[in-house]
Amino acid sequence: MALTPEQQEEVERLRSQTHSTRRATVAALEEILYSPLPVLDHGFVRVIDYMGDDAAIVQAARVSYGRGTKRVQEDRGLIRYLLRHSHTTPFEMCEIKFHIKLPIFVARQWIRHRTANVNEYSGRYSVMDREFYVPAPEHLAAQSRSNRQGRGSVLEGAEAAEVLETLKRDAAQAYSSYERMLNETEDGRLLDEDRQGLARELARMNLPVNFYTQWYWKCDLHNLLHFLSLRADSHAQYEIRAYAEIIYQAVQRWVPLTAEAYEDYIAGGLRLSRQGAEVVRRLLAEEEVSQETSNLSPREWKELMTALGRPTGS
Amino acid sequence: MALTPEQQEEVERLRSQTHSTRRATVAALEEILYSPLPVLDHGFVRVIDYMGDDAAIVQAARVSYGRGTKRVQEDRGLIRYLLRHSHTTPFEMCEIKFHIKLPIFVARQWIRHRTANVNEYSGRYSVMDREFYVPAPEHLAAQSRSNRQGRGSVLEGAEAAEVLETLKRDAAQAYSSYERMLNETEDGRLLDEDRQGLARELARMNLPVNFYTQWYWKCDLHNLLHFLSLRADSHAQYEIRAYAEIIYQAVQRWVPLTAEAYEDYIAGGLRLSRQGAEVVRRLLAEEEVSQETSNLSPREWKELMTALGRPTGS
Amino acid sequence: MALTPEQQEEVERLRSQTHSTRRATVAALEEILYSPLPVLDHGFVRVIDYMGDDAAIVQAARVSYGRGTKRVQEDRGLIRYLLRHSHTTPFEMCEIKFHIKLPIFVARQWIRHRTANVNEYSGRYSVMDREFYVPAPEHLAAQSRSNRQGRGSVLEGAEAAEVLETLKRDAAQAYSSYERMLNETEDGRLLDEDRQGLARELARMNLPVNFYTQWYWKCDLHNLLHFLSLRADSHAQYEIRAYAEIIYQAVQRWVPLTAEAYEDYIAGGLRLSRQGAEVVRRLLAEEEVSQETSNLSPREWKELMTALGRPTGS
Amino acid sequence: MALTPEQQEEVERLRSQTHSTRRATVAALEEILYSPLPVLDHGFVRVIDYMGDDAAIVQAARVSYGRGTKRVQEDRGLIRYLLRHSHTTPFEMCEIKFHIKLPIFVARQWIRHRTANVNEYSGRYSVMDREFYVPAPEHLAAQSRSNRQGRGSVLEGAEAAEVLETLKRDAAQAYSSYERMLNETEDGRLLDEDRQGLARELARMNLPVNFYTQWYWKCDLHNLLHFLSLRADSHAQYEIRAYAEIIYQAVQRWVPLTAEAYEDYIAGGLRLSRQGAEVVRRLLAEEEVSQETSNLSPREWKELMTALGRPTGS
Repeated sequence: MALTPEQQEEVERLRSQTHSTRRATVAALEEILYSPLPVLDHGFVRVIDYMGDDAAIVQAARVSYGRGTKRVQEDRGLIRYLLRHSHTTPFEMCEIKFHIKLPIFVARQWIRHRTANVNEYSGRYSVMDREFYVPAPEHLAAQSRSNRQGRGSVLEGAEAAEVLETLKRDAAQAYSSYERMLNETEDGRLLDEDRQGLARELARMNLPVNFYTQWYWKCDLHNLLHFLSLRADSHAQYEIRAYAEIIYQAVQRWVPLTAEAYEDYIAGGLRLSRQGAEVVRRLLAEEEVSQETSNLSPREWKELMTALGRPTGS
Repeated sequence: MALTPEQQEEVERLRSQTHSTRRATVAALEEILYSPLPVLDHGFVRVIDYMGDDAAIVQAARVSYGRGTKRVQEDRGLIRYLLRHSHTTPFEMCEIKFHIKLPIFVARQWIRHRTANVNEYSGRYSVMDREFYVPAPEHLAAQSRSNRQGRGSVLEGAEAAEVLETLKRDAAQAYSSYERMLNETEDGRLLDEDRQGLARELARMNLPVNFYTQWYWKCDLHNLLHFLSLRADSHAQYEIRAYAEIIYQAVQRWVPLTAEAYEDYIAGGLRLSRQGAEVVRRLLAEEEVSQETSNLSPREWKELMTALGRPTGS
Repeated sequence: MALTPEQQEEVERLRSQTHSTRRATVAALEEILYSPLPVLDHGFVRVIDYMGDDAAIVQAARVSYGRGTKRVQEDRGLIRYLLRHSHTTPFEMCEIKFHIKLPIFVARQWIRHRTANVNEYSGRYSVMDREFYVPAPEHLAAQSRSNRQGRGSVLEGAEAAEVLETLKRDAAQAYSSYERMLNETEDGRLLDEDRQGLARELARMNLPVNFYTQWYWKCDLHNLLHFLSLRADSHAQYEIRAYAEIIYQAVQRWVPLTAEAYEDYIAGGLRLSRQGAEVVRRLLAEEEVSQETSNLSPREWKELMTALGRPTGS
Repeated sequence: MALTPEQQEEVERLRSQTHSTRRATVAALEEILYSPLPVLDHGFVRVIDYMGDDAAIVQAARVSYGRGTKRVQEDRGLIRYLLRHSHTTPFEMCEIKFHIKLPIFVARQWIRHRTANVNEYSGRYSVMDREFYVPAPEHLAAQSRSNRQGRGSVLEGAEAAEVLETLKRDAAQAYSSYERMLNETEDGRLLDEDRQGLARELARMNLPVNFYTQWYWKCDLHNLLHFLSLRADSHAQYEIRAYAEIIYQAVQRWVPLTAEAYEDYIAGGLRLSRQGAEVVRRLLAEEEVSQETSNLSPREWKELMTALGRPTGS
C-alpha cells in the first residue's frame, strides 16, 4: 500500500483543507477522510466523500422541512423501525464514495453489485502498476473437501512454500513480459527504440487476476448494507471480506445508529424457514423433534440446531 | 408555496448553521441550500444536500489521489471531452438531493425516471394537505388539433373562465368529501364523535391528481442531466418543465463547467439521422435536394429544414 | 372489467394462435395466456409473455450447454439451495410480462418497484376511461386507532353508505367535468362546436386517483418475488395485495418449484433479530424470559411471542 | 470454440425439441437458437431464449389488448417514431438471453453495463478451462502514438512473433502452475496424493485475463441497443466489438424493423454540438467558415469536416 511521495502529498493537501458548509457533517468520518486504510498486502480503502448522516434518514422518512427529530432517542427508534420492516428507501438518501485499490479477482466479485457507480483505472489508457496480491501464509487455505466452494485447513510446509513461490514467480514473469511487449517500463521509459510496442489494451491481457486495480466506487447506504451483508459474511471469500470489514468500520463512524440496527436486525439476526420455525414452535411446546420428524434436510437441521445452540444430534 | 411559520423556522434554523468539512464545497450552491424555490402555484424545489463538484468528475475520471487537475482550463477540457464521448460514469460521482412539492400528475411523470431515490409523503399515514394546482390563465392551453399529445393555443373568455371555475370547484368538493370521510380536518380535529372515519389509505382515493404531494428525491448528475434533457425539453408537459428549469438553475450553480458542456453537446446540439446527415452533405456539395429526393418523411424533412434555418419548402 | 367486444375479440384471436418454438414452454401458464384475470371491481391482470421456467434457473446457475439437470428432484434441490442462500441472480434469468388494469393510487405504490419495465396508458395522448374503483362494502375499513398506517374494523350502517355514495358521486362529477373541459366524450364525440376543448394533458388533472389506468409491466422472477414478498404481505394495502395474489397464482403455474421454495424460505419464514434469537435460545434452555429481561421492546416482544405461538404475557 | 462431444449433444438435443406456444415467435431467430456462433479464437455467442418481437414493441407502446397493429407499415412507422424521439420504454418490453464464452478482459468491459442479468461460471466452485485468447496476427496492433487509448498499425516481423510466443508461453505456464497448485488437472484427476491442493478460489488468481470465462447474460432490447451503440462502435476495443457484431446479427434476425431504425437514427446518425450545428448553418448560408472562426477546437473541427465529407483544411 506504499503511496508514492507525490500521492502522499496529494492526500495530505486534501486533508489539510477545510471549508464551511451548511450540509450535515459527521466529525468521526471527517477524521479519516481521504486517508488510505490498508487492506491485504497492497490494497486500501479511502473515504472520499459522503452525503447525509443518521438524521438524514429520519428527515427523508418524514419528508420533513428541517432535520430529523429533535431527540436522538426518537431518531434511533425510527431507524430501527425502518430497518426492521424493510422500509429501505430512507437509507438510500445517504451516499458514500470510496477510492479503493484491490486485486482484479476481488474487483470481479465486487462489480456484481450493480446499484453503485464505478470509475476504474483503465489498462487501455494507462500502464498497470507492478503490484500483485500474494496471500499471507495464514490465509493460504486448502480446497475444502466437504464444500466445493469453501476453504479447508491452511496449507503448510513445502506445499505452502511452493505455492507462495509460484504465485510470486508467475506474477513477476507476467509483468516482465507485459513491459517487454509494451516496450515501456512502469515509469514510462522506452525499452527499445527499434520496436513499436504492443497496444496497452492488448498487452495487459497477460496480467493475472491477482494484480491490483483501482477504482472510485460510490453507493447509497441501503445498497452498501446489502453489499456488507453478503460480503462481510462468513460465506464470502476472505479477500473481499477484508475490504467489507474495513468499509463497515467507516459505516460505524458515519451512521452509528444505523450500524447498530444493522447488527441487530440483519447481520446478527436469524432467518428461519417455514419448517425451521415450526421446529422451534414444537421444541418450545416441549415436543420431541428429530431431524427425521422435522421436515428439514440433514444439512438444514444441522444449521438450525447450531444456530439455536443445541446439540445437532436430535 | 406558503410555508407555515413552523416550517419557515425549521428552514431558517438549518440555513443558520454552518459546519467545518474537508469535503468539496460549492459556495454558489450553499447560498440557496434549504431555501424553497417556488414552482407553479404552490410547489417548490429545495436543495437539501449535494456531493461533489466539477473537480470531483475529473478526480473520478482520473481515479486520482488528489482533487481534479490543478487548472480549471484542464478540468473544463476533460469534462467537455467526457460528455462529448458519452463517458458518463464520472458524472455519476456527483449526487444531489432535493425536497420537492409537486402535483400528483407531475409526480407520476417524474417517477418514470427509475435511477433515483425517492421518499414520498404518505397518504396512508398522514392527512393530505388542502392544496391543488390550478394553471395560470396563460397556461390554460387547448388541445392541439395537429398533435395528439400537444397543446394548442390558449383558451380564452368564457371557456377559460369555466375551466378554472370547474377545476377549483371539483377540487374543493373532493377535499371536503375527503375530510368528511376521514371524519377529521386537515389540522387533525375530529368532526363527529359518532362516526369512525374511513381509513386514510382509502379516503385519499377521492383526491384528484392536481393535488400536491411532496418527496425527497436524490439523483446522480449523469441521470439528472438525462432527466433534464427530457423534461426541460419543449416536448415535455409545461408543468414538469417548470420544475426542470428550476432544477437546471441549481445545476448551473453547482457544476458550471458541466452545465456549459451539457448545453453545447446535449441540450443545444442537433441529432441527424443517417438520411438527414446525407441531406446535409448533399446540400453542402451544392446539390439540389427536395423532400421527395431526400429519403426523409415530410415531417422529418420539415424538422430538419427548420433546424438548419432553411425554408421548409425545398 | 367488462372488455369491449373488440377487446374480447383481440384476446380471443391471440389465444387461438399457436406457434412452434424451440424455447422452454410451460403448459400451465400457456393455458391462461392473454386471458384477463379479474381483480377488484374493474381491474385485471393478463399474462402476455414469459421467458424461462424452473429448469432455466438451474441452467443459468450451472452456466450449462443444455437444459437444467436431468431430474426434477435435482432441480428442486438446487432451486431451494439458491433461494435459501440468497443466490438471487439465477432467478433473474426468468422474465414475465403482464397487462394490468389498476386504480391510479395502486399504480403509485406499484411503481416504487424500480427494477421493472413499464409502459402506461397516456392521459396526455388518449381520453381516460370512465372507470373508477369503489371498495366492496366488506373492504370499507375504518382508520385504525392503534396503527396510523393501518385499517381498523369495517364501517357499517349510515357511515358506510355515505362513504360509498360520496365516492361514486364525486367520481361521476369529476368525469363529467373532465368531458366538459375536453369538450369531447369518452367515445370521441365533440360536445360543443363553439368551444376549443382543454388539452388532454391538463383536463385529466381533475380525475381522482381511484380512476383506473393500464400498463404493460415486465419484471424478472427475482424482482417479482421481492415485489410479492412486500405486496402480498399483510402489511400491504388491501387493494395492491389483491393484485399480488393473482400474480402469485400465475407464478405458481409458471415456476412451481420456485414458488414452493419461496413459500418455505421467504413468505412463510420467520426473521428473528439478534435479541429475538437470543430469547429463543434462552427459552429452549428452559430459562424464564419476560419482556423486561428480553432486550426487546414491548412491541417486538409481542410480535415474537405471537410468531412462536406463545402467550404474549411472559 | 471446440465444444466437447457431450456439449455438442446437449445443444443438439435442445435444438431438436419443439414445443407449441401461444407466445410471439420469430422464425429467423429460432433457426439459430442454442447454436454456438464463433467469436475470436475460442469464444462463442449462443442465443438461449427471447421474449417478444417488433410487434411486441408496438403492442406495449399502445398498451393494447391484441398484438401490434394490423399492418407491418404501421408498425414500422411507430417503431421509427419511438426510436427517433427517445421513447425508449417500449423497447424494454423485448428481452433476450445469451450464453457467451469470452476472455476475462472482455468480460470486465462488458460487465460495466449494469442493466442486465448475469450468471458467470465460478472459479471458486469449478476448475477453469485451459483456454486463453491469443490475437490473430492481423489484430496484433501497436500502441497508437496519437491517441493514448487507441491502436496504431499492426505489429510485424520479429516483434509480432515474439509477442505471440510470449502470450502463449506465459498463459501455458500460468495454467500449469494453476493445476500444480490445485493439485488437480482440468479433467479432475488428482496429481499428488501427498499434497492438499490450494483452494480453487485462490489458485485461480494466477490466471491472466486472456483466459476464457463463460456466462449467461440477459438484457432488454433498449439496453442491448445502447450496449451495441457503444461496443459495436469503432472506439470500442476490437475484441469486444467482435462480440457486439455477432450479437447485432442476432438482433437483425429478431427485430428487423427495430434494427433498421437503429441504423438510421442511432448507429448511422450524426450528433452535432451547438457550435457544430452553427457551422453547418453558416456553411449552408454560403458563409466562409474556418476552424478559427468556428468556435470549435481543432479536433472537433476535424471530426466535423470529416463527418460532412469536406476537406478538413477550411
